[in-house]
Parts: sequence; C-alpha cells; structure tokens
Amino acid sequence: MAVYRVTFNHQTEPVVVKSGTLITEAARLAGIEINQPCGGQGRCGRCVVQVTDGKVRQRSALRLSAEDIQMGYCLACQSVIEGDISVVVPEQEKIERRLVTDRTAIEVQPIPGYAPEYQQTLKRYFLEFSPPDYEDQTDDLSRLQKHLRTDLGFEEVEIPISLLKKISSVLREGNWQVTVYLDVLSTNDGNPTARMVDLLPNRCDEDSPMWGAAIDIGTTTVTLWLVDLWTGIVHAQVAEYNAQIRRGEDVISRIIYADKEGGLQELQELVVGTINQLIEIACKRVKHHRVSPQDILKLTVAGNTTMMHLFLGIPPSYIRLAPFVPTFNQAPLIRAKDVGLIANPHAVVDCLPGVASYVGADITAGVLSAGVDSTDQLTLFLDVGTNGEMVLGSKEWLVTCACSAGPAFEGAGVRDGMRATTGAIEEVWIHSETYEPTYRVIGGGKPRGICGSGLISLLAEMFMTGVVDKAGNLNTSLSTPRIREGEHGMEYVVAWKDETEHGRDIVITRVDIDNLLRAKAAIYAGFLVLAQSVGVPLEETEQVLIGGSFGKYLNVEKSIQIGLLPDLPWEKFNFLGNTAVKGAYFALLSQEYRTRIHEIASKMTYIELSADNTFYEAFMAAMFLPHTDLSRFPTVLAALQDSNIQFQTN
Amino acid sequence: MAVYRVTFNHQTEPVVVKSGTLITEAARLAGIEINQPCGGQGRCGRCVVQVTDGKVRQRSALRLSAEDIQMGYCLACQSVIEGDISVVVPEQEKIERRLVTDRTAIEVQPIPGYAPEYQQTLKRYFLEFSPPDYEDQTDDLSRLQKHLRTDLGFEEVEIPISLLKKISSVLREGNWQVTVYLDVLSTNDGNPTARMVDLLPNRCDEDSPMWGAAIDIGTTTVTLWLVDLWTGIVHAQVAEYNAQIRRGEDVISRIIYADKEGGLQELQELVVGTINQLIEIACKRVKHHRVSPQDILKLTVAGNTTMMHLFLGIPPSYIRLAPFVPTFNQAPLIRAKDVGLIANPHAVVDCLPGVASYVGADITAGVLSAGVDSTDQLTLFLDVGTNGEMVLGSKEWLVTCACSAGPAFEGAGVRDGMRATTGAIEEVWIHSETYEPTYRVIGGGKPRGICGSGLISLLAEMFMTGVVDKAGNLNTSLSTPRIREGEHGMEYVVAWKDETEHGRDIVITRVDIDNLLRAKAAIYAGFLVLAQSVGVPLEETEQVLIGGSFGKYLNVEKSIQIGLLPDLPWEKFNFLGNTAVKGAYFALLSQEYRTRIHEIASKMTYIELSADNTFYEAFMAAMFLPHTDLSRFPTVLAALQDSNIQFQTN
Repeated sequence: MAVYRVTFNHQTEPVVVKSGTLITEAARLAGIEINQPCGGQGRCGRCVVQVTDGKVRQRSALRLSAEDIQMGYCLACQSVIEGDISVVVPEQEKIERRLVTDRTAIEVQPIPGYAPEYQQTLKRYFLEFSPPDYEDQTDDLSRLQKHLRTDLGFEEVEIPISLLKKISSVLREGNWQVTVYLDVLSTNDGNPTARMVDLLPNRCDEDSPMWGAAIDIGTTTVTLWLVDLWTGIVHAQVAEYNAQIRRGEDVISRIIYADKEGGLQELQELVVGTINQLIEIACKRVKHHRVSPQDILKLTVAGNTTMMHLFLGIPPSYIRLAPFVPTFNQAPLIRAKDVGLIANPHAVVDCLPGVASYVGADITAGVLSAGVDSTDQLTLFLDVGTNGEMVLGSKEWLVTCACSAGPAFEGAGVRDGMRATTGAIEEVWIHSETYEPTYRVIGGGKPRGICGSGLISLLAEMFMTGVVDKAGNLNTSLSTPRIREGEHGMEYVVAWKDETEHGRDIVITRVDIDNLLRAKAAIYAGFLVLAQSVGVPLEETEQVLIGGSFGKYLNVEKSIQIGLLPDLPWEKFNFLGNTAVKGAYFALLSQEYRTRIHEIASKMTYIELSADNTFYEAFMAAMFLPHTDLSRFPTVLAALQDSNIQFQTN
Repeated sequence: MAVYRVTFNHQTEPVVVKSGTLITEAARLAGIEINQPCGGQGRCGRCVVQVTDGKVRQRSALRLSAEDIQMGYCLACQSVIEGDISVVVPEQEKIERRLVTDRTAIEVQPIPGYAPEYQQTLKRYFLEFSPPDYEDQTDDLSRLQKHLRTDLGFEEVEIPISLLKKISSVLREGNWQVTVYLDVLSTNDGNPTARMVDLLPNRCDEDSPMWGAAIDIGTTTVTLWLVDLWTGIVHAQVAEYNAQIRRGEDVISRIIYADKEGGLQELQELVVGTINQLIEIACKRVKHHRVSPQDILKLTVAGNTTMMHLFLGIPPSYIRLAPFVPTFNQAPLIRAKDVGLIANPHAVVDCLPGVASYVGADITAGVLSAGVDSTDQLTLFLDVGTNGEMVLGSKEWLVTCACSAGPAFEGAGVRDGMRATTGAIEEVWIHSETYEPTYRVIGGGKPRGICGSGLISLLAEMFMTGVVDKAGNLNTSLSTPRIREGEHGMEYVVAWKDETEHGRDIVITRVDIDNLLRAKAAIYAGFLVLAQSVGVPLEETEQVLIGGSFGKYLNVEKSIQIGLLPDLPWEKFNFLGNTAVKGAYFALLSQEYRTRIHEIASKMTYIELSADNTFYEAFMAAMFLPHTDLSRFPTVLAALQDSNIQFQTN
C-alpha cells in the first residue's frame, strides 16, 4: 500500500501515512489539534484547513465556496490523502475556561437530619486483632475476614485483588489495629452486599471526614461536588468543559466519533481526564482540610445515557439508530481504577440509572433533587441543554420525553452563536420605534457573539417590536439599516463591526431564526405531547421546575413571548440550576435517596416522540411566534394588542 | 546526585546510572541478562562479572578468592557502582528446554461417569430474544438480564464492564439469538452465584468443545493441561521452566527478589508470560480442533503459596518471616485479564486453596488427585521438589508439614549438581571391589553433571560399597584413585575429565554429601514428626504416594538405602507424577472435586516444624546413612550384613 508524506504548518518532519488517511488523522499523528464540533461528519465546517502543496480527494465540501476550494481550502475530516501534501492548519478556536464560581456554584444544604450511621452506605469500622504466632498461623486474609464476620456481621466482603496486595503490610504497620472502609448496600433479599474500599493502619479519628464526590457529566460541562460523607457538607463545587467537546458538540456527533477506530477510547480518556482535573481542583479548594484525590472513597455519577456509555467505554452506537436502544440504563457498580479515575483506586463508582437513550441519569437525578417524585403538585420539570428532556408528573405518576431541540440554544447552528462565556451577548432590548438594540455582554467587554439566553431575548424583542413577524420573516418595510440583505438572505444587525471585539458585524439571519424556531417548537411540542399522553391540559401545570445551568439564565417573560415556555404565571417557574449534580449528591449521601432514584427510573413512562404522530403536528403548530394557537399564549396576545404593532391573527 | 557511565561487554553506548546502583540493575538497563539463582542475595555466586576498568564497592564477595577479586571479578548483585566502570559479563548458563513430552506427560482419564451438565460449573446456554422496537425500547442489558432470569432462573449474573462493551453488537450480529457462557458456583446458602464469561452470536453446536486449562505453577516448572470441559478429555499436556528461575531458584530467593523495587511486578510478568507461552503451545498441539487462546473460558491454578502470591502480584514478604503467615491461602476468583493471561479476558481463574505458607494448593490438589482424602488406608503422600511437603492420613484425618530440604535434590548446592536435563547423570552403580562407577546419562551423550536421582543413586552406592561410612566420610583407606583430596576437602570422582562434555572431572565432595544428608534427614524427620503427632508408628503406613515430576525418577531401593524414604515393602510405593496439575484438572472438571479440595484445605492440620522440638531431634538422628536407629531400616541392615563390608553398628 502506498504511503505519503504530509507536512503540517511548514514543520521540518513530515508524518508518513497510508493512502486513504484523512487529514484529521494525519494531524493527530503530527500532534496537531483540529477541532471537530460535529464529530467529523463534515457538517460544521470548523475543521477547514488549507492544502498549500499537493492535492487531496474531498468526499464532501459542504460550506466551502468554489473560490475556497480553488485556494486549496478543504474540510480536514472529509479530505482523503492520496499523495504527498503540505497543509496549513489555522489557529484553532480556544474553548475558554468557564467562569465556574459565579455561574455554576449553587447553595446546597445537606439532607435535613442527615444521619450518616444509617443513611450512608460507606461505613468506617475499627478492628483490633490478636497477632499471629506459631499457635495461630491463620493467613492475614482469613484473619481479617473472621473479624469482619464475627465483629461486624458481614458473611462475605468483596475484596479486590489490588487491595489484597496491601493487607499484610497494613495489618503489621498498624500493629494489628486497622480502620476498614466498607461500602454496604442493602439488597432486596435483606443480605447486604459489602465491598471493601480501603484498609488503613491504626484507628482513625471517628469524626474525621470521609470524602466522596457527586459528578454530573454534561455533554458540554462536567460538574463535581466534593463532599464530606460524614457531615454531608459540600466542601467544593467545580465545573469545567467536557474535554470531549473538541470531538463533537452534541451527543450525536460524539456517537459518530466513537464509532471511528480509536474514537471510543479517546472519548473515554477525555472525559475521565476532565473528571480527574476537577478532582484535583476540588481537593485544592477545600479549606481547613488537606484532601488528596486518593482520599475520595465513593463517587456517584449522573449524566445523559450517551455520556454514561462513553464514561464506561461502552460503544454508544445504537443510541442513535432506531429504535434507539442503549446498551444499558443501569450500569453495574465499578471501582475507580476500572475507568482510570484518580480517586482511591478501590472507591466504588455508582453510575445512576437512566430511563432511555435520550432520558438519562441526569434527568432521574434531576427529578430526585427537584422532588418531582414526592410532590402533590402537577409538575413540569425540564432540563434545557444540548437536548431538551422533560418530565411531567407528581408523586403519583411520571411521564417523560426528549425532543431533539438541536444545539441552537447552546449557540451552535447560529451564525454568531456562541457559548455563555466572556464576550457573549446575554440579553438584548430593541427600541420599538427606532429598532435600535441595546445589549448586555458577559464580562462587560466588547461582544464576540450571542449566547442562548441572548438569542431568546433577541428573538422575543424582534417579535414584540415587529422586526419579525409570527413566521419569523424580517420586516423589510421598516426604515432601519439594521435590517438588510446579507450573504445568506435577510438579516438583522445586532452590533456593528466597530462595537465588536473581532471587528465584524454581529447579526442574526433568517436561517438562524428558523433554527431557533425549530428548537423552541420541539420543546413546546414535547410539553403538549406529555400532557396529552396523560390527558391533562398543559395549563393545569402547578409548577415548572427548570434545571440545567442554561435554565438558570432563561428569562421567563421572553421565553413565553417566543413560545418556548407555556404561558403560565411567572411565580410558577422555578430555576434550580444543576439539578443533576444535586441528585447525584443526594444519592451519594443517602441509601434512601439512592433507592428513590431507582424507583424513579423504573416508574417513569418514556414516550418516544419519533414514533408519535401527535408530536409532528404539535411541532408544526409551534413553528410560529409564539404559536399557531394564540389562545395558548393569552398574555403574549394581550401585550401585542397593547403595543402599536400591526398584528395579524391569521 | 552523581551519575556514572557503565559500559558492558565493550558496547559503544554506556548506560548512565545513579551512584549506588548495583551492577545487576545497570545490566538490566543495558538489556543484558545476568542470572541470579539466589534472587540477588550474594549467596550463589552465579552472577560473577569482571570489572575491567574502574572500581566498585563490594558489599559481599562470598565465593570469590583474593586472586579473583584482584582480577576484578565481583558478584554483580553485591557490587555498588560509585564511578565510571567497564564490565564484562560472561556468557550466561542457558536454561535448556525441558524434554516435555516424554518426561512429564502422564496418562489421564476423565472422571469416571463425568457428566458436564451436573458437574461442570461452566454452563453454555442458548437464548433467543424478541428484538426491540418502538413499543419495547428496553435496553440491551436489561433484555439479556430478563432472559437470564426468566429462562434460566438466575436472579443476578455478574457481568463485567468489559463484557458489557460487546453485548449490543453480539445481540444484533446474532439477530437476537446468542450463546451465553456462565460460570455458576453453588454456594452454601443455596443461591448459586453466576458470572458471565462470554456471549457469542447465534446458537453454538451443543457438543462443540468448551475449553479450559488446568495449571500447576511449580517453582521450577509450570505445567498446563488443555481440556475440553464438555468431554473431560485432556487434549494437550505441556510444561516449561518457570521463567522466574533467573530471579531465584527456590521460593526464598524469589521472595527476596520480590521485595526489591519492581521485583514483584517482574516476577508476576515472568510467570504469566510462561503460562501464556504454554497456552499458545497447547492450543497448537490440539488435534482435530482449531483452538485459540481466547477460546479458553475457565482455568484452575495450583501451586505453592509463594507461587500463588507471585501469580496474583501479592507481596509474599511475610511468608519467609516468623511466624510464616501468608497474605492468603484462598484467593478470590479473578478474571484472566486481571493478571494478563491471554485466555478469554473474562475467563474465570480459580486459584485453588492452600493450607499454610509452605503447604500450598499444589499439595491440596495432590491430596485430591491421589485420593488421600478418600482412602481407608493410612497413606503417606509426599511431593519432593524444591521443598519437601508431606501429608499423612486417610479419609478420617490429615496432617501435613513442610521441611526445608533445600534444593540439593534439584541439583543446587552440589558442586556438579544440575537439573534433570540432557547431560545429567541420572543413575550410578559402583563396583563393590574396584569402586569403579558406571552411570547412565539423560540423552545418552557425555555427562555434564549429576541430577537429583543420580545423586541419590550415587550416595546409596557409595554407602552400600563402603566408599563412605554412615556419617558420610569418604573411606581414604580404599585403594582407588577416585577417592582423593580435592580443592575443598575429600571427594569421589564419578567421571574423569576425558569422559565429560566440558572436559572437567565430575566429582562429589564431602560438602556435597553433607548437603544431601541434610536434605534427606529433613524429609525423613518430617515423616517421623507427622507420625508422632498423631501417635501412629511410621511403619504402619499402608501406602506411600509420591507426587512431583522428580518423584517419578526416584529409585525406591536407593532412597531407602540412604534413609530418605521409610523402609517399607516396595509395592507400597506408588509414583504418581504431577499430582498437582491432576488435582487442578479434577477441580476444573467438577464442582464436587472443587468442593472436596476446599474441604481438604480446611481439615488438614498443619504442623509448623520450626516451632517443634521433636523435629530437631528427629533431624539430627536422621543425619546418618541410613539413620542412627538402624532398627528403622531392617532391609538395609540385612543387605549390609550380607555384603563383605565392614560395618560398625555404633
């Protein structure tokens, strides 16, 4: 087979690859990072590189003009190497560090009346032995097992071989006095299963902390809370972008990437790397205690079903193929070392249970921490992130569905969309007569783009001021230079180039508006299908609980104006922040809560929208601002009628 | 810290080491192998190298003459590098491939009436599912678990994460028909524990083989039988030197080596490497079937306690320290991948139970396969290998002990001793008038040394012909040039240099005779202590069963003549070959046998000889040929009296 030489960025040493290799693969060999937000499908256009010498075969050149192609530009993920080439890779977009402390930390109280002796599965015991002699040459393991049986009542304790390695030295170092940590789970048949987590020499102070971590693996952000399991106090809250982002921005892109050779292992290593990084940061943040990663003895993990598969290194391929069946919803317990976590290698890792391919453990954990499964009130719970998952119900019943809202609210699929970091426009107001906008930028500097909450705000303002009509068409009859014909059709200029950081106009285009309409329509249609499935009018919802860090910045008024949220009194809406990590925290503390999350997972009825005709109808009806059926949005209708805008009800 | 350059064998690239490094460590860095039969204790003198340039600090120079030291010779394991040096490493002794087929293969029959359906813990089941659709989106794992529960009755099956990785693709590849392999162990409480071992697409032929392996990890030799678990037939028997040999010839040397940095991991990798090599060879040997290592789904492992610790990578340090307590006698079940075996990664590896630090699973397995635990006859079972382990008893009771016989019978500690390979003198006859010897050499060529059976034969002949007296002193009054004053005292020449392969005389020295006397005395004293401990005269022993491949070549008459074996009628002796691997084979086939070996381990009474005063007395009394108390050896006494040799009874 022919091999070719590929020179990147004028480096002196070319890499040698087989004929047929993709430029992205060659770049990885050369140690050069090329972002692939769509997972290498050739859809996002972010992996554009320039071939300055030689030629490649392009399988797809989506998003490239004939002129681009003429100049040697190509998509690295779609370009097959069939000869010696030289490639220039433009500087890659940096994924900036999230403003963790002020944007994701939430106040949290331990479970009221938390009693670790009863609720905590991680147990700490002190054992004292008589040392062996010629009269009693019992081996160390049997000696330990005997005490676990007679002193503590555990007939059988699972002891991993890797822990067996240190038993003999610990027994002697502690002069036959040891502290043993067991993770004890009650089971249905009444026989608890006990797993040894650690064995340390000597008696340990009874009130000293026992460290645990609650983790939410988000598609975009991974959040970790470091907790003293003895007091229940959260000592550190940290979050970081999921390092998998470079290999795809949404779950579908990640699944596609995982299907490539080596992709699954790479994605697993990336997310485990992110968690390990968070563990290190969290340990350093703890005040008044010196905590090392090895001190973490128990972890609970929430996350959507794809994230769980990737975390455990299990191929997620079938999640995206009809009939959308995951390999598992409930993973077996594992030990930290099984996946490469830097916690204590024998720490038990409890992956929380999910419901379906698109309703994962982040949702069951959210339902738990939001208390949806214990309330009398008819509750709508939603987590608007990369996907839109929602739950309707109360302590009597729970129905759930997921709508592929697309990543528009995360800033993707929108020309000037971006994540909610420094430089993002997060709120917009439009003057109803001049159509001039004012906006607020995260961090206070010049804007670079518009984040999800900014897009909702912008769309609502455009609609309420008549800049767009109910179908999302820009009103070209208005006398403002901000509405103009752009490269890809009509657009509205939010910021002129002299106001922006990068010196280019920030605009919202007709195409962007369509993407946003589809996203909000999918979510609203989901609400309606859930309500219809149980025969309850959506308007009877008694409370709306919104989880997810994005949800925290959702402006209810504007969200109702565009028809993203149902038109209910504002006081019925409650923003809860990251409900998934909070649910993981509850399950980390208390076996009762852990049992509850399993009950939630098994009692929740999942509705598959792609198999549901009513969804399509509801979706089409919601593709307008705020909705075809205006009677569903009485406050919006009233506001429009109050304003001077010409408004057609048909 | 200072670093120095060490040049080996005039190589162009020196290795750079820190001050204080040993020559053995530097050699490893340079990729040069130096044998260390004593594990680097400076006792055996086999790691001698010559420092041709520069100087080293010698911690110990045992076995080196002042002249040697003058010429730069030193023990590599005892020489500390404190400056730039050049070293010449003499060619290392090759450990030759054992003549496996004709010397270790034994005829073996499956258990009579073997019924795999009932006795075999490895079960093969065929399952057929209805595929998922939008009406039933149950995840693959739950779907599988449901069928394991409803079709097969297993409430809970342990499925490792690594197996979970392939479940989804196997289910689809087999179009929802799969063959599942479970290892099902009955437990005391009646709930069997089931472990999934493999899952394959489609229905497999019900009579096709299910492959398993029975392994005995000897200190010197590792033996493996490849077995069809369905028929019970042994398809291949292979053996190979334990690759750990280079790091110590006996268990004590290995333990010392394991205590060094990196030593434990190296020893584990060496023995796993040997087993993997045997697996590959065995698979190729099978006729009429194509077997790959991955097809092996279950393994049982016997071996002494130190070998078991090293196999699992558990520090064996305390085995050699009073009161001689191992970390474990019974290891938990593991999976093949946990230790790096190339069998199916999920194959269950069942390490058989031992009794004490010096009575391991090789002995319990030997007792099982020899049927000591089920016989009415008072039985003496012994395994004479590097250590001398023995068991006395019947189905009523069992007592056991181990005497550190030392490796004399393996050819070590004897000037011209060697292993039982090509070139070893394995039998000797001495003319009673001329004192001229004749001998037989393994392989038929010129001799290179004397192996264990040859040494016993030689010593017996020397004694019976009066070449040595009962105390082992050479009779200098005999008129033969073969008895002479050698470099290290008196010696007897077995082969003149013109008859030998290496052109040097092969002799046995007074020092050698003392080592042999100590070894045989330790074993015979062990017999006596066992008998005394239960108040049974040793002479009442109804059968003597001898295991171990060395035992197979023991000449009973000559062994009795030197007082190694008790003076019983020859027909009471039975040589069984490798009883350990045979026991592992029985436990591999049948759960009943597996239960029996656990019963053997728990009912056997271990007598610690180092804490037993009677042992020392018995040992001293046995330091003569054949024994101080000649009434214990009536046939030897009669033979001596028949001969013309002047014989003093005191």
